[in-house]
Amino acid sequence: MTQPTTTLALALRDGGYAKAPTPQVPDSLAPFLDLRDVPLPGLAPGQVLIAVILSPVNPSDLFFVQGGYGQPRVQGQAAGFEGVGRVIATNGADALIGQRVAFLGTGTGAWAKHAIADAALCIPLDEAVSDIDGAALIVNPLTAVALVERARSGGQAFVVNAAGSQLGRLILGLARDEGLTAIAVIRRPGEEDALRDAGAAEVLVTSDPAFRAQAAAVIKAHKPRVLLDAVGDQATADLFFAMPSGARWVSYGKMSDDAPSLTQMGQFIFMDKHIEGFWLSRWLPSAPADRVAAVVAQVQTRFATGTWTTRVATELTLDQAIDGILPAYATSSGKVMIRP
Amino acid sequence: MTQPTTTLALALRDGGYAKAPTPQVPDSLAPFLDLRDVPLPGLAPGQVLIAVILSPVNPSDLFFVQGGYGQPRVQGQAAGFEGVGRVIATNGADALIGQRVAFLGTGTGAWAKHAIADAALCIPLDEAVSDIDGAALIVNPLTAVALVERARSGGQAFVVNAAGSQLGRLILGLARDEGLTAIAVIRRPGEEDALRDAGAAEVLVTSDPAFRAQAAAVIKAHKPRVLLDAVGDQATADLFFAMPSGARWVSYGKMSDDAPSLTQMGQFIFMDKHIEGFWLSRWLPSAPADRVAAVVAQVQTRFATGTWTTRVATELTLDQAIDGILPAYATSSGKVMIRP
Repeated sequence: MTQPTTTLALALRDGGYAKAPTPQVPDSLAPFLDLRDVPLPGLAPGQVLIAVILSPVNPSDLFFVQGGYGQPRVQGQAAGFEGVGRVIATNGADALIGQRVAFLGTGTGAWAKHAIADAALCIPLDEAVSDIDGAALIVNPLTAVALVERARSGGQAFVVNAAGSQLGRLILGLARDEGLTAIAVIRRPGEEDALRDAGAAEVLVTSDPAFRAQAAAVIKAHKPRVLLDAVGDQATADLFFAMPSGARWVSYGKMSDDAPSLTQMGQFIFMDKHIEGFWLSRWLPSAPADRVAAVVAQVQTRFATGTWTTRVATELTLDQAIDGILPAYATSSGKVMIRP
Repeated sequence: MTQPTTTLALALRDGGYAKAPTPQVPDSLAPFLDLRDVPLPGLAPGQVLIAVILSPVNPSDLFFVQGGYGQPRVQGQAAGFEGVGRVIATNGADALIGQRVAFLGTGTGAWAKHAIADAALCIPLDEAVSDIDGAALIVNPLTAVALVERARSGGQAFVVNAAGSQLGRLILGLARDEGLTAIAVIRRPGEEDALRDAGAAEVLVTSDPAFRAQAAAVIKAHKPRVLLDAVGDQATADLFFAMPSGARWVSYGKMSDDAPSLTQMGQFIFMDKHIEGFWLSRWLPSAPADRVAAVVAQVQTRFATGTWTTRVATELTLDQAIDGILPAYATSSGKVMIRP
């Protein structure tokens, strides 16, 4: 089979980083993406060419296309961090030919008919894992496993905000399975029971007038020492300062445009508190390979047995994506999927 | 000699913690301190009774008397964290009898004619060390040594604010002696040359209109990865966010009443930045005893040889202290001393 030299893709209009801080969600994707044919370079050793089946829209994708993510854009290259597809060519990884794999768009992006990926980061899929679950098998599930590991290092109980998101629910389920006490924080009421079903021991709603009093009581009862934060607003900072000595605020996302204030700096000194970050792209290369392999196997088993499922907001074709992603993203906590 | 059962002291009017956050410097000390005779309890095993010669006023003392420090006040007990004095009685530490020692007021406070201290934390003084240097031998110098150690763990260069303070100058001198590049930050111009003499490689003045541009240039040139912070204002946060990947903001004091904003939360994620605290009271018990002994010997040698000196703003008697401390504290970066 001859390898294609171009592919249809949602291509980045600009390269590098944004010149100013970016919002979590832009007003429109049209200034950032362009549907067109882009060149497919030859495969370097260890790379595979994938016919993409399905690719999700993650919050990190929206930061990335705006230039607000931790790695620079390459002008004219496809966006899209992960997906599921079939390997149709390789340079030195022949065992993967014809396999359906979950992949990271490390060579070229996943929002395209074809993508180039590193064979070492491709995960061959069991038949029992659906395309939908396979498309979102890497970024969120590996992040969930790594974050729960970090939470466990702080003790029995932890706090997780944006708990209604796909990633939040993965974290809650993992926490329950591992016997940890997860305190879920959401912005608006309505999903409390669903989150308890998903694994939350407690649910706090930041828009509730009694939020502070309820948070104080829950913190007193469970003494959580890790705060897994995808929001980064003042309510997050207030929760952190209400937590006991030794508490760690672990920022892994920034869904709010707030700049939270450090109202009690003395707690860093006298209560040994910390603020730190988590980024999958840093954790993955630094994690031991056997640990990553074990995590990947665990993640795949959870999807194959139905313990975890990926909730889908909608599926869009490439030519529907630029106009369709943001409206679907705004109205559902499920994943928006692109089917190229 | 009969052990006295009472002593004249600057006694704490209240116990426990303040009910609201406290400023760095109160309007008056009269609501917090009372000059009177207080009981001296019997010596527990390992304790010594000290006739106090001289005791400094540290920033931490001012937080403590207001109830804003990390340990609770004991109503009716003397304030004062450290001093120099002569050991006049012991319970099990007879070798110290008659010795002039630097001490921490761990049993009763140092702002009194007599204080009870732990023998293990008393440092017998060489004759070459003056009373003035001996009085401030423990809190600031040990803090300086521990902080420079932490700075060194981040690489060649570091930033230190409030650099004109007694502690700041100790840090600058230590950094130069150890071959590190110290970037000194002060609020107002005037002491740039003095700080370069004290050991600063660069001096930045936050009130200078060109501060941001100068800071950016200095950070680009030296790539400091540790920020030693005794201020905790927005300028500190801005410096932190201007520093390179991996930067650590180490808070060890809070001279500003600002609540700084975290304007670039994404840096925790993508640039692996951290905020953490340092407290001598936590470091001291956790540090290996031989390490502390080596540090103490090093500190004493620096004072004995004149490498370090303690600058004095004024000396006050106990009955001058309540009215006299704050005016003297406000007008000099030298130490206010109490001579009971």
